[in-house]
Amino acid sequence: MIAMDDLTKPWRTFPLTTFSIPSSLISDVFDDREKVRKIGYVGRAAAIFRVEEIMIYADDSKDNAEYINSLLQYQETPPYLRKKIIKIDPKLRLAGLLQPLKSVHHVPESFGANIREGVVISSNDIKSVVDVGMKKHVIVYKHLPIGKRITVVLKKELDNSYIGIPIDRNSIDIYWGFTTKIFKDMKELLQFLKSCGYLVICASKKGEMIYEVENILSKELKMYNKLNVVFGGPKLDVDEIAQKSGININDYCNHIVNFVPRQGVESIRTEEAVLIVLAILNYLKERPKA
Amino acid sequence: MIAMDDLTKPWRTFPLTTFSIPSSLISDVFDDREKVRKIGYVGRAAAIFRVEEIMIYADDSKDNAEYINSLLQYQETPPYLRKKIIKIDPKLRLAGLLQPLKSVHHVPESFGANIREGVVISSNDIKSVVDVGMKKHVIVYKHLPIGKRITVVLKKELDNSYIGIPIDRNSIDIYWGFTTKIFKDMKELLQFLKSCGYLVICASKKGEMIYEVENILSKELKMYNKLNVVFGGPKLDVDEIAQKSGININDYCNHIVNFVPRQGVESIRTEEAVLIVLAILNYLKERPKA
Repeated sequence: MIAMDDLTKPWRTFPLTTFSIPSSLISDVFDDREKVRKIGYVGRAAAIFRVEEIMIYADDSKDNAEYINSLLQYQETPPYLRKKIIKIDPKLRLAGLLQPLKSVHHVPESFGANIREGVVISSNDIKSVVDVGMKKHVIVYKHLPIGKRITVVLKKELDNSYIGIPIDRNSIDIYWGFTTKIFKDMKELLQFLKSCGYLVICASKKGEMIYEVENILSKELKMYNKLNVVFGGPKLDVDEIAQKSGININDYCNHIVNFVPRQGVESIRTEEAVLIVLAILNYLKERPKA
Repeated sequence: MIAMDDLTKPWRTFPLTTFSIPSSLISDVFDDREKVRKIGYVGRAAAIFRVEEIMIYADDSKDNAEYINSLLQYQETPPYLRKKIIKIDPKLRLAGLLQPLKSVHHVPESFGANIREGVVISSNDIKSVVDVGMKKHVIVYKHLPIGKRITVVLKKELDNSYIGIPIDRNSIDIYWGFTTKIFKDMKELLQFLKSCGYLVICASKKGEMIYEVENILSKELKMYNKLNVVFGGPKLDVDEIAQKSGININDYCNHIVNFVPRQGVESIRTEEAVLIVLAILNYLKERPKA
């Protein structure tokens, strides 16, 4: 039995959650500022529900996929590191409009984590200096490439610095942001998910009602290591995009699920669906065993 | 036992769902276009989850409350009626940016309803002509005030018109949009909810974890006629706004609930919380009896 107060802590729990969105996410928006905010909502949803990776599959254009990818990567980078590690890119002209994530790895003080994201600003054979966006820099006794983004555990506070140890992002117990990945189409995405053993759930109004699959789904959420939720776009539903990509969606996913009984609108937008679906899956996934 | 295919229909089911948002919803946004879109997300969430009424309580300024109110009312009005029944208002300068609801009463063809919203364009002692945004007008054998918004059931199609009967919005079985109401502060809101017998749920990170209350909540969702979910704002949580309003939130609400176990961000924005919380409550509320 898990104590309820533990459930407020943003631990990384299994299955690790990932989701996939189409590049056409932004195809129904003509205002650039609105495009950025739409992408920002998706990134916020990912951080709220501790999503490990956002996969973008091109269903309309490679350019859109790369645009979404660049903005999500910018949003995921702690604000104090952006100027230091992100190259100037015309795609990021309006990136300042992205909603701040304020996720664990952006504001560790709020979560009491002694881990920081940083960038190596100088280095010699003995030690490296890492800027972690605090008044004091962190000294790491190791040669590291200048300009590299790394994660450090703060071990000791000195008068003018901290002593830290670099760690692998994947070894952190607490949620530590998301990565992104682009796929050239839905077929490539679904083949990847299948070959890597993901539990694949497609979100669609045409799917089975959540009540029909929740028992088996709850069991699967205890068996799998990785979960991916595949979302459709503003013009086509998941099954229609699959068809266009020359495949049958049923061959690649565990369930196609309708998460909104009695929805009052004709269609739910992708950025809305991401929040709705992850809310219910998080609720099912984190439920303590009876 | 409810058939699963019935669960795709947007019936009005009990308890009728309403929610409350603070006027400070838009206080953290400085760009007017972004304010409009933030309000638009809230209205979209309402339509997705068949919300009957959005209550706005002033916690920072009456002006903000009225601004939110005007925009939500605009968004709720079927697009073909807007120019005919909404007066020119400087608050609505950017209303064109609001996301379309595409709810049942905006696009009845998609839902197969023979009910339309319309405006009375001419009237005499015997009959009135109602513009319902279709090629043919609707004839109603009744005197009605010109300019009035009414709901009509289409009974018969003639060569150049329909014959219709006006009906009360509240008698419609299918979801038919939301109304809005302004309260001068949270105290007035909560007193109203209590006196009208609403099941009142406050959404807060500090609340009880959803798993602790879901059994009793599921029972209450079968007992009450009306539900209101109270949301906090960008700066203060529900309990803090209550305190500022001179009341103890616990005296007025049935439960304070945390709907996001292990949230990965410092705080969830109101427009995100509305989608997340309504998604889970809709899931609990519509679950067929075992």
